[in-house]
Amino acid sequence: MYHVLTDQDVEKLVSMKMIVSAIERTYEEQANGTLVAPPRFRLETEQGDLVFTAGAATAVEKVIGFRVYDTYANDLDGHQQLVCVFDSDTGVFKGIVIGNLLGAVRTGAIGGVAIKAMARTDAEHVAVIGTGMQARTQLEAAVAVRDVKQVRVFSRNPENREIFAAEMMKKLDVEVIAVDSPTSCLQGADIVICATNSGTPVFDAEWLEPGVHINTVGPKSVMRHEVPMELGARSSVIATDSIEQLKSYSTPHFLVGTPDEERIIQLSDVVTGKIPARKGQDDITLFCSVGLAGTEVVVANEIMKAAVGQA
Amino acid sequence: MYHVLTDQDVEKLVSMKMIVSAIERTYEEQANGTLVAPPRFRLETEQGDLVFTAGAATAVEKVIGFRVYDTYANDLDGHQQLVCVFDSDTGVFKGIVIGNLLGAVRTGAIGGVAIKAMARTDAEHVAVIGTGMQARTQLEAAVAVRDVKQVRVFSRNPENREIFAAEMMKKLDVEVIAVDSPTSCLQGADIVICATNSGTPVFDAEWLEPGVHINTVGPKSVMRHEVPMELGARSSVIATDSIEQLKSYSTPHFLVGTPDEERIIQLSDVVTGKIPARKGQDDITLFCSVGLAGTEVVVANEIMKAAVGQA
Repeated sequence: MYHVLTDQDVEKLVSMKMIVSAIERTYEEQANGTLVAPPRFRLETEQGDLVFTAGAATAVEKVIGFRVYDTYANDLDGHQQLVCVFDSDTGVFKGIVIGNLLGAVRTGAIGGVAIKAMARTDAEHVAVIGTGMQARTQLEAAVAVRDVKQVRVFSRNPENREIFAAEMMKKLDVEVIAVDSPTSCLQGADIVICATNSGTPVFDAEWLEPGVHINTVGPKSVMRHEVPMELGARSSVIATDSIEQLKSYSTPHFLVGTPDEERIIQLSDVVTGKIPARKGQDDITLFCSVGLAGTEVVVANEIMKAAVGQA
Repeated sequence: MYHVLTDQDVEKLVSMKMIVSAIERTYEEQANGTLVAPPRFRLETEQGDLVFTAGAATAVEKVIGFRVYDTYANDLDGHQQLVCVFDSDTGVFKGIVIGNLLGAVRTGAIGGVAIKAMARTDAEHVAVIGTGMQARTQLEAAVAVRDVKQVRVFSRNPENREIFAAEMMKKLDVEVIAVDSPTSCLQGADIVICATNSGTPVFDAEWLEPGVHINTVGPKSVMRHEVPMELGARSSVIATDSIEQLKSYSTPHFLVGTPDEERIIQLSDVVTGKIPARKGQDDITLFCSVGLAGTEVVVANEIMKAAVGQA
C-alpha cells in the first residue's frame, strides 16, 4: 500500500541525520551518472503556473518521482507542494507527501551536506541570518553534522529572533542567542547560514572571519541577492549542487558573468572526494544552494521509510 | 481542505451524465481558447518513464492540474495513475485521485460526448467489442446519452463476454446479450464501441450498417489498429478530440498519410455546432479518441465536487 503523508507526519518522522545521509548518497548518484534530473517543466496559464521538478536516483535510492508547486502570488491558505514517489525498478507508486515542510527539510539537508563537506571539522559557532522555515531546517542540519556549541541569530524583527532562539534552543538542545545586529551575529562564526528573503546584502564581505563557511539559501540573482557581490572573490572555494541549474536561471545568478563563475564546483565532487573543499583552515568557503531536482523525491522516500518503521 | 480519493470513491461518486456534461464544457473551452493542453512531458530512465499530461480549463471549469502514470512493463500490483487538481484562479490545491478507474471513466465520457454529438438521435442498438474497463465505461456513457434498448457484446473469450453481459445488464438496467462472433455483434447496430487491445482489425468495414457511429478506443496506429484501414474511407465524418495530439504520435495514427487525414475534424467543433456531425441518416461517422490532455483534471474535479455533496 502507498503512503499519503502531510506536514504533521514529516515533522514527526524526520531525522535530519538520516535525510543528510540520503542526500549525500544522491550526490554520489549524481557524480556516478545514475541521477536523472531534467530541467523543470512548467504548465503556464495567464493566472499562474504549475512547476514540476522531476527526477530519479536509480542505482542506490531506487526512486523516481517529482515535486509540483504553484506560482500563484496570493496568501490564501491551501497552497501545497506535492512530492510523489515511485519505485524506479518497478514503477510501483510508493506515496505522496502533501505540504510545504518537506521542501524546507530538503533544502536544510542539502545545506547540511555542504556544511559536512566544506566547513572546518572543528566548527562550533554558527551564525544564522533569517528566522523562517528555511533558517530553521538549515540550522537543524548544521547541528546534525557538526558539534555546534553556540548559535547566534539575527533578524530585523526583534520578536522573530527571540522566538527563533527560544524554539530552536528547545528543539536542538544547543545555546541559541538572539543578537541585534548582523555584525554581532557574524562575530566568531565558523559557519554562516544566510536564509532571508532580502534582495540586498544582509552583511559585508569584510565582516567574515578567516576559515568561515557560508550557506546562502535566499535570493542570489544578479538583481536581488542576500549576500554581497564581493563574496565570490573572497571565497577560496565556491560550490553549488547543480552548475547546470545555477547557469539556467532566466534572471542570472549573481556569480554568472563574473571571473568567479569558472571556479564554481559541484558539491557532488566534494562529497565523493574528487575535489577537496578547502586547502587550509583559513579558507573561506561558499555554498550556493539551488536545490538539485530529484532530491525532493529522495527525501520523501526517507520519510516514507520512517513511516513504515513507526507503523 | 483537499480531497484524497481512490477508485472506490470514483466508483461510488461517479455520475456518467455529469461527467459527460463536464467534458462537453471542456470541449467548449477548447473551442474558445481557454483550455491549456501542452504536449506531454516524460521523465525518462533506462528502467521506465513517468508521463505527465498537464492541462488547465480556466474560464468555466477553473481547474489546473495534471495526470501522471508510469510506463513500466510489469504486472505488479501497485501501479497507480495520479490526477491532481488545483484551482486555476487561486492555485489552491483541491485534491488528488489515486487509481486507474478515473482514466477509464474519462475516456468513457469522451466517448459519450462523441456519441451524443455524432450518433443518430434515434440510435437504440449498441455493439460492444471488448470487455475491459474501457468497454464498460464507454457503454455506460453511451447509455447516458442515448435511449439504448439493446446491447450486443463480443469478445474472443466466451467467459469474459458472459460476465460483461451479466454485470452491465445489472448495472445499466438495459438488455445486454453476449454473442459469439463480431458479425453477429455488429448486426443492426446503430453505435459500435470498439475497445480492445487488438493490433489487427476486429471487424470488416463492409459489415457496418448505413448510419452507424463508431467509437474506437483501442490501438489505432498504422502498425497496430483494432479497426480496418478502410474505415476512414467508409466514414462520411471523422472526428477526434485533438488533431494536434493525433498527429503527434511517434508511431503514426492509421489515418495519417491517407487521403482521409485532411478530413479529420475536431469533436469540439461538432459540440459547439460549428461543424455538423452528419448530413444524413445513412452517414457512417467515426470518432477516434486520443484523450485530450486536461480532461482528466476536469473529471477529477467533478468527482471531488460529488464528494463534497456526499460529505
